[in-house]
Amino acid sequence: MRASQYFISTLKEAPADAEVVSQKLMLRAGFIRKVAAGIYSYLPIGLRVIRKVEEIVREEMNRAGALELTMPMVQPSELWAETGRWEKMGEEMLRFKDRHERDFALQPTSEEVVTDIARQELKSYRQLPKNFYQIQTKFRDERRPRFGVMRGREFTMKDAYSFDRNVDAAGRSYDAMYAAYCRIFDRLGLTYRAVAADTGAIGGDRSHEFQVIADTGEDAIVYCPDSDYAANIELAEALPLLGSRAAPMHGLEKTPTPGAATCADVAKLLGLPLATTVKSLVLATDDVDEKGKPAGVTVWLLLVRGDHALNEVKASKVEGLKAGFRFATEAEIHEHFGCKPGYLGPIGMKKPVKVVADRTVANMSDFICGANDEDYHYTGANWGRDLPEPDLVADLRNVIEGDPSPDGKGRLAIQRGIEVGHVFYLGTKYSKAMNATFLDEDGKPKHFEMGCYGIGVTRILGAAIEQNNDARGIIWPDALAPFRIVVCPVGWGKSEAVRSEALKLYEGLLAAGVDAILDDRDERPGVMFADWELIGVPHRVVIGERGLKEGLAEYQGRRDAEATKVAIGDLAGFVAAKLRGE
Amino acid sequence: MRASQYFISTLKEAPADAEVVSQKLMLRAGFIRKVAAGIYSYLPIGLRVIRKVEEIVREEMNRAGALELTMPMVQPSELWAETGRWEKMGEEMLRFKDRHERDFALQPTSEEVVTDIARQELKSYRQLPKNFYQIQTKFRDERRPRFGVMRGREFTMKDAYSFDRNVDAAGRSYDAMYAAYCRIFDRLGLTYRAVAADTGAIGGDRSHEFQVIADTGEDAIVYCPDSDYAANIELAEALPLLGSRAAPMHGLEKTPTPGAATCADVAKLLGLPLATTVKSLVLATDDVDEKGKPAGVTVWLLLVRGDHALNEVKASKVEGLKAGFRFATEAEIHEHFGCKPGYLGPIGMKKPVKVVADRTVANMSDFICGANDEDYHYTGANWGRDLPEPDLVADLRNVIEGDPSPDGKGRLAIQRGIEVGHVFYLGTKYSKAMNATFLDEDGKPKHFEMGCYGIGVTRILGAAIEQNNDARGIIWPDALAPFRIVVCPVGWGKSEAVRSEALKLYEGLLAAGVDAILDDRDERPGVMFADWELIGVPHRVVIGERGLKEGLAEYQGRRDAEATKVAIGDLAGFVAAKLRGE
Repeated sequence: MRASQYFISTLKEAPADAEVVSQKLMLRAGFIRKVAAGIYSYLPIGLRVIRKVEEIVREEMNRAGALELTMPMVQPSELWAETGRWEKMGEEMLRFKDRHERDFALQPTSEEVVTDIARQELKSYRQLPKNFYQIQTKFRDERRPRFGVMRGREFTMKDAYSFDRNVDAAGRSYDAMYAAYCRIFDRLGLTYRAVAADTGAIGGDRSHEFQVIADTGEDAIVYCPDSDYAANIELAEALPLLGSRAAPMHGLEKTPTPGAATCADVAKLLGLPLATTVKSLVLATDDVDEKGKPAGVTVWLLLVRGDHALNEVKASKVEGLKAGFRFATEAEIHEHFGCKPGYLGPIGMKKPVKVVADRTVANMSDFICGANDEDYHYTGANWGRDLPEPDLVADLRNVIEGDPSPDGKGRLAIQRGIEVGHVFYLGTKYSKAMNATFLDEDGKPKHFEMGCYGIGVTRILGAAIEQNNDARGIIWPDALAPFRIVVCPVGWGKSEAVRSEALKLYEGLLAAGVDAILDDRDERPGVMFADWELIGVPHRVVIGERGLKEGLAEYQGRRDAEATKVAIGDLAGFVAAKLRGE
Repeated sequence: MRASQYFISTLKEAPADAEVVSQKLMLRAGFIRKVAAGIYSYLPIGLRVIRKVEEIVREEMNRAGALELTMPMVQPSELWAETGRWEKMGEEMLRFKDRHERDFALQPTSEEVVTDIARQELKSYRQLPKNFYQIQTKFRDERRPRFGVMRGREFTMKDAYSFDRNVDAAGRSYDAMYAAYCRIFDRLGLTYRAVAADTGAIGGDRSHEFQVIADTGEDAIVYCPDSDYAANIELAEALPLLGSRAAPMHGLEKTPTPGAATCADVAKLLGLPLATTVKSLVLATDDVDEKGKPAGVTVWLLLVRGDHALNEVKASKVEGLKAGFRFATEAEIHEHFGCKPGYLGPIGMKKPVKVVADRTVANMSDFICGANDEDYHYTGANWGRDLPEPDLVADLRNVIEGDPSPDGKGRLAIQRGIEVGHVFYLGTKYSKAMNATFLDEDGKPKHFEMGCYGIGVTRILGAAIEQNNDARGIIWPDALAPFRIVVCPVGWGKSEAVRSEALKLYEGLLAAGVDAILDDRDERPGVMFADWELIGVPHRVVIGERGLKEGLAEYQGRRDAEATKVAIGDLAGFVAAKLRGE
């Protein structure tokens, strides 16, 4: 491609509403333009990157035996009603009526449509396994679209759905997708981690997120540097930090802690380690009777160590909280504890409360907790002596850096990530809801075992940039770059020698099938270099009159601090080696 | 691809609601499945055909220097309001509100968004010309979606938009697209015709439709077999069939024609040629005064020969009708003619009526027309003698087969077509409405001269099938076929020799880069052949045990009446020649 016939449209400054670096750089480099909140046009150079992602995704999905199809953007309510998701999906699913007043939605995902295809088309076990995928526009009406393509409303997603005879076969489909995803992210040249994720109501251990590592990521990833353990923080198991409960050393004492309403304040005031305090969190469940009618409220007191944080996903797995919970209201707290938040604790409540202790808290002795009296805490509290044993003990907290790894092989570390892929075993959730069956070998109908597998194609652009950028702009991995190499002639309009050498190199690259661009815009070197560094082209060759007089050109990799002088006779070979990664 | 690992899902019968042959065959061959009215999923084999169309379109657009980008499906009302189309577009544009109650539409086309991009990005004449295109999902909420993918609601369209400095440059962009479209439809292997089309309010002669010829087409295409004249029937000029008016031969006579309310009935009753009768059509315009307030109704009488049909597009170009017209109400007709329809004519009206005669009618003598008296017609009517000269003479009618060609080079023929592409010069319609300007060489802002260029990607599938099918199924042109060749082993599961020869051929084809499928499903020959003939694969090789004993295989082209026996040693070479079209 010649730059003069292409469309390069860089900006000195990003628009004021751009928040994160990838968004700023994609706008500045002319990859995207905003059309509405969370809705973008992809300019030609941005679309090139999308196509490169799509092509790698497509090749690896095909290699894994998946079959590409296309399901519609606009989907009728009837299918979504079958699984109950027409009601259950939140406002992210954009719903509307057509001219005949029929209900439709823009696809946020396509489990319903693909399950409908399977129940129509896959009649026999002989047709299984099947894995259908599409690379298609999705729409999610985010309340607050932001971060450019990272949390947009209209975006491109690869979504795949596997159909299998039984759980074992579904496991093999899952493993094949997991392996394909690893190949995809390897080929994209991204630093990533596959982490175990929560499976929610489906259960089992077959859910993994593919996270691109970036300090700016929204997700916390937990891993063990000494083993292959990796999980997102919602799932990562927190082992008890105390093997057993030590014998009490102190008596229970009600201590004035005026104005100290957080564990940190209390520990500081008393001059004791934060790890000797216990944090109280009050939840509520709205109970129903057998007929499903309201039957009062149960209040729950969850206890985690002062330096730990409650993990709501883990809380939702506690027996009694699985059907859903909420934080208690101020009135409910006052009714049960006789005190306002900040001084709550498990000793001397006004009314019965279900007490759930985190595994570590359950083994603490001589701990500090709120006294249910404003401006007072207890010190020297001990289970069994000063208060009854907790009703339940559970893993309630987020792990923190340095916690023991659940696989017993070292200590945990935490890094930030951006979720770009997810593989998920669905079981028979959708096939049962939609009565999607096939005839098994025994002649009996059986529900499909399903899995779903997503990759955020457009989000990968943002994630790749969050991971790979510097003050000058984007640094694309070769596989993602809109152009792999730019040839920058200095003095294109003036020097026949420059033109001739630049064209020779450029045409040689094209002939070798390399995605090269020739900057024949006749811009000043500073403008050229700034543009290509902002755009993030990985390799650059500069050919100028001054260098040519000495028989030299310059090569610079996008991550290189300095340019390398190369004899013009060796240039093609030198560049070819660089493009091979040598 | 091996059929056992692919997804072949043919049906014996098409669903009852399928209307046209392409729709029936696409459903039966497993290319599409209906999700809602006018909304389809494309199964893997259908998507393969779409990808082939897309790839050819993309290559030729790129070759013509157009740049691919992507504009969003979901577009905000604000941009559409700028051109007035938020109001003007009918119900085909599906409008809805997002969760924040902001107005959006699904893109039926993208003039507004692309013009917004141009006014932001193209600042200088030095950046021109530019032609941006996308291959993207569109949505039009058709009142009555039908004919499968031919008039669907969700469909894939390639839409391109050119931006130029001036009319001449815009003409060059138009010509480049016209040439690219010819290359595209040539490469697709379709029989088509580029026909001149109406330019409406834009004016000029730069609008062409690309029509795939098919007897089942909705459009009538007019062409001259002896020249390159071709136009759609809306535009095709009807020359006067009479060079001048002959002298009257008969007196005006009011003749009883009881119950004969059509020209055909009258001609038959009187035993005279239909071409001696004149048909009366009554239109009305709602006049407004200088302040735009209603100012009464003007009634118009349009006259065409009894064997001709009114062309409403031509009528809309008559001075006085340009701002819009409607058919007159019964009351208006009675008020002005004192008679009911069926016996209306230009002689003896009750109130003034604007009379517009078709060019041929204006030169008729001794003609027959309604007498404005129920059950009576005049014979021997003559302009100037029996009635005043018409207020206006204009081309008002559709041409018919055998009319003289407007280029004077022969006689016109008519055939049916399916519109699959359209190139259109837009002028400054959108750039003025949205104030999209660039700085010209003289430093002054100037509005872009624009053109738009569409290709109905999914519709091409339907059109190709309407043009190429037989009782057994689809007959794809090689360029469009989901697979170019199928290798059918008879006795795959039983015969090692059959497997070995079939694999040898199949693997050789793959190695040569041919899109081949091996039918390793071990189905009976009848099932295999019926599937592949229905699916429309252009080339088939059958390898069976019986043939192998004699050292023979069988080749059959999809259009061939019979198979050709080929010595197994010559098979690869024979097939290669067939694939080269020899």
